[in-house]
Amino acid sequence: MSATVVEIVKASYLKTKPNDETLGFGRTFTDHMLVMDYSVATGWTHPRITPYEPITLDPAAVIFHYGQTAFEGMKAYRTDDNRILLFRPEKNFQRLNASCERLSMPAVDEAEVLEYLKQLLIVEQDWVPSSPGTSLYIRPFIIATEAFLGLAASKEYKLVVILSPVGSYYQNGIQPISIKVEEHYTRAARGGTGAAKTAGNYCATFNAQTKAAQEGYSQVLWLDANEKKYVEEVGSSNVFFKINGEVITPELNGSILPGITRLSVIEMLRSWGIPVVERKVSIEEIFRYDDEGLLEEVFGTGTAAVISPIGELEWQGRKLHINDHQIGEVTQKLYDTLTGIQTGKVTDPYNWTVEVK
Amino acid sequence: MSATVVEIVKASYLKTKPNDETLGFGRTFTDHMLVMDYSVATGWTHPRITPYEPITLDPAAVIFHYGQTAFEGMKAYRTDDNRILLFRPEKNFQRLNASCERLSMPAVDEAEVLEYLKQLLIVEQDWVPSSPGTSLYIRPFIIATEAFLGLAASKEYKLVVILSPVGSYYQNGIQPISIKVEEHYTRAARGGTGAAKTAGNYCATFNAQTKAAQEGYSQVLWLDANEKKYVEEVGSSNVFFKINGEVITPELNGSILPGITRLSVIEMLRSWGIPVVERKVSIEEIFRYDDEGLLEEVFGTGTAAVISPIGELEWQGRKLHINDHQIGEVTQKLYDTLTGIQTGKVTDPYNWTVEVK
Repeated sequence: MSATVVEIVKASYLKTKPNDETLGFGRTFTDHMLVMDYSVATGWTHPRITPYEPITLDPAAVIFHYGQTAFEGMKAYRTDDNRILLFRPEKNFQRLNASCERLSMPAVDEAEVLEYLKQLLIVEQDWVPSSPGTSLYIRPFIIATEAFLGLAASKEYKLVVILSPVGSYYQNGIQPISIKVEEHYTRAARGGTGAAKTAGNYCATFNAQTKAAQEGYSQVLWLDANEKKYVEEVGSSNVFFKINGEVITPELNGSILPGITRLSVIEMLRSWGIPVVERKVSIEEIFRYDDEGLLEEVFGTGTAAVISPIGELEWQGRKLHINDHQIGEVTQKLYDTLTGIQTGKVTDPYNWTVEVK
Repeated sequence: MSATVVEIVKASYLKTKPNDETLGFGRTFTDHMLVMDYSVATGWTHPRITPYEPITLDPAAVIFHYGQTAFEGMKAYRTDDNRILLFRPEKNFQRLNASCERLSMPAVDEAEVLEYLKQLLIVEQDWVPSSPGTSLYIRPFIIATEAFLGLAASKEYKLVVILSPVGSYYQNGIQPISIKVEEHYTRAARGGTGAAKTAGNYCATFNAQTKAAQEGYSQVLWLDANEKKYVEEVGSSNVFFKINGEVITPELNGSILPGITRLSVIEMLRSWGIPVVERKVSIEEIFRYDDEGLLEEVFGTGTAAVISPIGELEWQGRKLHINDHQIGEVTQKLYDTLTGIQTGKVTDPYNWTVEVK
């Protein structure tokens, strides 16, 4: 029962592929994309692979005015023996559907869309880079396309999957980053859209991000909207603290994105016998643990950087230096193991990788 | 110093205009639109009037992924002596710029864009309907168009203004509506984007709106995200309560949209000698005033319906009936005066209307 796209229209001209060394993030796109349409009357129809080409929408399309949209981020990796691996892709399509539900958007058939994605990846297989740290970033997204300015869920949608070869996140080896706790802006509130991967959550963070960058920080740490007390996320990553041998991460509370790297890290740590607790954790508590000499490691998790060690935290003028700005032992092991599994260099005891063939 | 568009490309085919009687909201658009482009290098350039036509964007455009966008809603009215009036349009462009600032987007020259809009309205003047209650709805919006998946403000934008003739909001006379207090979802939190007119705020409300409609309510009343205690907005309108001769409306706190109808209502009431207080007001307090027989009138304010009387409020299983489901005296006077000023039927002592000529 493998679903197939109904049409493949090949690009008449293929782009020159960039060198792996010059790859950045999110500026280069491949020759083809996956497209599928939805209307209330027909459901999802006409899955097809087309040349990478502009999207043409009525100026009154709901996406432009009321922002109904959801997206995912995932990667395809090339192994040393030239296979192409996806990492837990079914989790991405599950989350896409969870996002759609929050945004009053129609669900997709998760298994079918994964099959279509694999077909796109086979068409574009030469675009999957092979240098260490590189991958083919996959961006599925759904946008509301009905031309209607009334305040109601769109009756028409378009799913698009685009692909972008991306370089190593850590060009010069892993450098722990400096983070500033954001006191003014909030990312998401309980009852809002923070647990969904939807556009409006991201533009809302740009002001805070710009301010932090001007002050010399890589990212902001987001506190809860209600009390500005509890840790939520770092930048667009989930965050973990190793304290006195135990790893703590904020529990999923409705305003935190349920990261797939987050889930994988929790499962790996548990399989290694390292205790992990998902719970509310206040920023004040983190600073207190540091005073007591118990704060051992801090890191972010996400699809882009996989594991980002954090070397410094600033909060209300106080600065906290973690593990002498060096990547911690557990952080390093998580990074090596996870990227090893993703690229096929390390045995995958969890059955997380899915080969595209 | 009146700015003019650099180009007017006329549509080769003009649409048949709908009858005023069949006008709904937001489905019919006129023959032309206003477009202007921005890049960091050039600033805003090439203001032009074009045929109403699709917008073509790269699939990686920031609007589709991170939702950077802001919009406005305003109306043009035809007077009995065939003039075309705008209502406080400078306030809309001020607010558009305030929204842009929150979304890390470039400001427009407010006075210039208003001039361009007037030129568009002159081209489209035959589209301004004349029947009572009708108007030409004006939707300016700015979208982020750079093709880049990095998490950063777009370096390119497009401003578009589209026009839609709209029918009378109250086809069968004003009927007070029933409202349900929303207990689960939140619209916006302090530090978020609630005070900006941006797409992500609107899609976030569709689930709650659908649930309320299924239960027989027209709209939801939004409480604050922190304590779910204080009144914020009703649907996409600001809300006013007349209590024992005094009018109360939630103060602008960073999560409430600063409505232009809201501002106008406050100014009108004050000019009539009716006390108005902007302050935090809890839903519990409203129910207590009703118990005490002091709750006299409740109404929403917004561009679409102008003034919407509220006849019923449901909260935690308790129902409150306002003024016997009849429109209140002050609500009626506000509606008559405001729509009278907007359509030129009533003298405008505030200098709010701007003639397009």
